[in-house]
Amino acid sequence: MSPRLEDLPLRDDLRGMTPYGAPQAPLPIALNVNENTHPVPQDVADDIMDSIALALRDVNRYPDREFTALREGFADYLGHGLTREQIWAANGSNEVLQHVLQAFAGPGRTAFGFAPTYSMYPLLTRATGASWLAGTRASDYSVDASDAAAQVADAAPDVVFLCAPNNPTGTPLGLDVIEAVYDATDGVVVVDEAYFEFAPRDERSALTLLPNRERLVVSRTMSKAFAFAGARVGYLAADPTLIDALRLVRLPYHLSALTQAAASAALRHAPTMLRMVDEIVAQRDRISATVEALGYTPHETWTNFVLFGGVADPATTWQALYDRGVLIRDVGIPNHLRVTAGTEEETTAFLDALASVGSTS
Amino acid sequence: MSPRLEDLPLRDDLRGMTPYGAPQAPLPIALNVNENTHPVPQDVADDIMDSIALALRDVNRYPDREFTALREGFADYLGHGLTREQIWAANGSNEVLQHVLQAFAGPGRTAFGFAPTYSMYPLLTRATGASWLAGTRASDYSVDASDAAAQVADAAPDVVFLCAPNNPTGTPLGLDVIEAVYDATDGVVVVDEAYFEFAPRDERSALTLLPNRERLVVSRTMSKAFAFAGARVGYLAADPTLIDALRLVRLPYHLSALTQAAASAALRHAPTMLRMVDEIVAQRDRISATVEALGYTPHETWTNFVLFGGVADPATTWQALYDRGVLIRDVGIPNHLRVTAGTEEETTAFLDALASVGSTS
Repeated sequence: MSPRLEDLPLRDDLRGMTPYGAPQAPLPIALNVNENTHPVPQDVADDIMDSIALALRDVNRYPDREFTALREGFADYLGHGLTREQIWAANGSNEVLQHVLQAFAGPGRTAFGFAPTYSMYPLLTRATGASWLAGTRASDYSVDASDAAAQVADAAPDVVFLCAPNNPTGTPLGLDVIEAVYDATDGVVVVDEAYFEFAPRDERSALTLLPNRERLVVSRTMSKAFAFAGARVGYLAADPTLIDALRLVRLPYHLSALTQAAASAALRHAPTMLRMVDEIVAQRDRISATVEALGYTPHETWTNFVLFGGVADPATTWQALYDRGVLIRDVGIPNHLRVTAGTEEETTAFLDALASVGSTS
Repeated sequence: MSPRLEDLPLRDDLRGMTPYGAPQAPLPIALNVNENTHPVPQDVADDIMDSIALALRDVNRYPDREFTALREGFADYLGHGLTREQIWAANGSNEVLQHVLQAFAGPGRTAFGFAPTYSMYPLLTRATGASWLAGTRASDYSVDASDAAAQVADAAPDVVFLCAPNNPTGTPLGLDVIEAVYDATDGVVVVDEAYFEFAPRDERSALTLLPNRERLVVSRTMSKAFAFAGARVGYLAADPTLIDALRLVRLPYHLSALTQAAASAALRHAPTMLRMVDEIVAQRDRISATVEALGYTPHETWTNFVLFGGVADPATTWQALYDRGVLIRDVGIPNHLRVTAGTEEETTAFLDALASVGSTS
């Protein structure tokens, strides 16, 4: 006789909850979680293997707790004159954000974001004991500087999340918004640039705003543009003093020697790893154009995915695509669905399936 | 002009803290953090590399969030009729314990352990917003069943940590203590068997107590006996319902595809990976006998390390060993030092150095 969850001394705030997670289904075309559907090139994989083999020789020892070589790799990749003292990393950007929340939010404090935004922000916030405050966006999901600053000043949160570009909508965010929000709060401002590499090439990163803003954090991930979701590597740049604060809350040796070796090797091949970005952007723009031609309303996107409205019944369309072997995401926005830009073949399969759904519904 | 930590909006409870961490020093003989100083055998390393190469082919995709194959591997290794539904794992046993605390302790709750014990327990507890309650041990660091049950009943904690055998003292813990403590609380009881593989071969694990105890957790690690500290893999066994509770607090995809592949491969070679345990136990017993002959007082140990008392000035002795190229640990217990059992050569180097220190002090 197995007990029920209610029989265990679970925390009250967890009762009735269900675990976070996108459906994992073995469909031929999986465009639901904004992965990079291009595998790591073989020559990069070979170099990663060589680095892991070296790390494995000392795997009986604890890893470098300061992951010094990896932080140097991120500083080199990001540029902007950053040094390793300004870099932090963890097992996925979720853990990076968790460290920020553990240091600057937690019990009795609050975190804020403009909804709809990355669904993990409120979950991560509540998991550290803090409360989540949701701001609002315009009907096209954009946020302008003066409204954003006013909302943040009113909410007075301890941590602000600015997802730039925004997930799940794809919406760009101006640097002027970041500057205005920063000036409107005494809290920590996290600019989540998980999808930054898919933005137009001449766009400036929030990294350019770091000087003299000791409460500003710019987070990134290797999961998307770097095609490294399975390796779980997120990172951020900030003032060295803020990085010191994260050392107070991280678990010792949180990054394995194998992760450090694999990520450092991949960073050495950044141009090769990022070679697919242009192709993905082309497929993304093809999706936007085609779904619009099919009568849907795609939102402007600077990411590797497209959110499109005009879906009469998202659950039905999602299921019809599923039945055709195509997995996309119902993110819970009424009359909308979200699809990741895949390879040319995967994108074609999605667009063909959507066209056939449209003609039968 | 870099800001100071006090200038940032850090949580009040973190102010004045310094990051946890044993000193990392590049000495020839490092016996300070209870690592297994024997490298992974080459044939096992080769198989691990093959498994990682396979995982790398899909590293652009998120890993199996349920790490199903790895949980099956742990269930097979642990035996006792366990199935994968009773297994959980994370990046080191610290993260496994963090998940338990996030689910069952956290803000407004308490966790308890018999001091001196693993120094991460209070840190992990406070990091989740809970309070730490320290119980007491006998002068030889043992705990008996009736006293333990009385202390736990009096403290009424939400989570109890029983480190068996105990770190940093090495002390065995009877199963009768676990049974008594379990009956004395309505909270979750975690038996931390990080060093269990170094106990006498005929000793029963707390795993044998799992049936009909839905609040009992038995945690393990691959860092010690498995010589896998660099790979960061901890795990636990418990009732499937308790495992479900941990799913509510884990970060999605917390275990990378590379970690899952490496750990699964290592588990397939468990007998080879554990081959060094007997040799380490022999060196441990040699340390105990020799330090006693040198006039120190080693405590009974079922681990891969020895805590010895009778050290007039631990800081001076620690430094004298350091100056001779031998790194051991001052764990903060007056008149005591702790040393890890290394290879025969490393152990000899430590014992020779200690003998020379003794003769010169």
